[in-house]
Amino acid sequence: MKVPVVRKILEANDRIAEMNKALFREKKVAVINLMSSPGAGKTTLLERTIDALSSKIKLGVIEGDIQTSADAERIAKHGVPVVQINTDGACHLDGNMIRDALTAIDIDPLDLLIVENVGNLVCPAEFSVGEDHKVMILSVAEGDDKPAKYPLMFKESTVLLVNKIDLLPYTDCDVNKIRADAKTINPKLIIFEVSCRTGQGLEDWYAWLTKQVHG
Amino acid sequence: MKVPVVRKILEANDRIAEMNKALFREKKVAVINLMSSPGAGKTTLLERTIDALSSKIKLGVIEGDIQTSADAERIAKHGVPVVQINTDGACHLDGNMIRDALTAIDIDPLDLLIVENVGNLVCPAEFSVGEDHKVMILSVAEGDDKPAKYPLMFKESTVLLVNKIDLLPYTDCDVNKIRADAKTINPKLIIFEVSCRTGQGLEDWYAWLTKQVHG
Repeated sequence: MKVPVVRKILEANDRIAEMNKALFREKKVAVINLMSSPGAGKTTLLERTIDALSSKIKLGVIEGDIQTSADAERIAKHGVPVVQINTDGACHLDGNMIRDALTAIDIDPLDLLIVENVGNLVCPAEFSVGEDHKVMILSVAEGDDKPAKYPLMFKESTVLLVNKIDLLPYTDCDVNKIRADAKTINPKLIIFEVSCRTGQGLEDWYAWLTKQVHG
Repeated sequence: MKVPVVRKILEANDRIAEMNKALFREKKVAVINLMSSPGAGKTTLLERTIDALSSKIKLGVIEGDIQTSADAERIAKHGVPVVQINTDGACHLDGNMIRDALTAIDIDPLDLLIVENVGNLVCPAEFSVGEDHKVMILSVAEGDDKPAKYPLMFKESTVLLVNKIDLLPYTDCDVNKIRADAKTINPKLIIFEVSCRTGQGLEDWYAWLTKQVHG
């Protein structure tokens, strides 16, 4: 009983995501779907990225959280347009939520829209929102066994940011194991080792992101 | 369309969870449903707990993961019966999965069964597996905004273990904020500050867990 229901929901979502994608193309807005476990550093990455790039790129943000507008408030302080989606219990964003959010943010002037998903290493990977690329963050504090145990997000992502590398001396995490296991799942995966706290390694991420902006 | 489907799934799960609970009562086995984000330290807590208590308490473990049997292999080395559930994509354990797993582990001789859920701070909190208590872990590396942003698991849990306190000097996490926000959501929540890596603070957890074992 359950599997067909899930398939129908996913198919319906894919149709709406395609409509979103067509709209983003028409408006020439590049769209990134940013995903990770809770607390891996999505919002801090966004704050850093906005500060580094917003003089060159017109950036906007859609924030997804189950509750609170804390993240949108953090982003708003950095001077870019932002809208908060509260999923009210739902564990991921879907195409419809993004479509609704587009009534509250003007994407016409934007070069780049970053969608920060609900903190969850599992469900968001199944639902396209119409993005050009999925980008994921894994914190070294989560451990090096995560690619093998949660393969779908690693498979679906174009970029993996291995974050909090400033904590490496205090953990048992082996970044080479993360690299090897993630590449086994997704040989094309682009991997950056960064610390959103110290700024280490973020230049390569900024360069990649800048390249995604359409002409 | 979606909400009634979800409600039906939850209602069906509750019925099966009640059947599991009746069986656990009949067999006099206390059952803990252990939940957290990926990499917060569930398996390491289990390893510590087994080593500390298995001479006094007959312990068994059900491991839930999307893929791999890595966690069950870690647990098996500590000399207790363990069975691995692979959810094959599903983001939480449910009552039926536990019912199936009970054909692969003999709970008759057990005093305590710990079910380690899939790493996910959202979905597992909605699905009872027939446990006596939900216990959750939050790693300080995840940040102090998690109770406000992911309230359901904090609301549903009897115990919160704030783990990786050995990392506190290297993070911006305020444990008092975690305590205050979690208690606002769930005033009865029992909170232990621990490091599963160093062993700090675990004695109180062992004492609480030992008290849950029936007669």
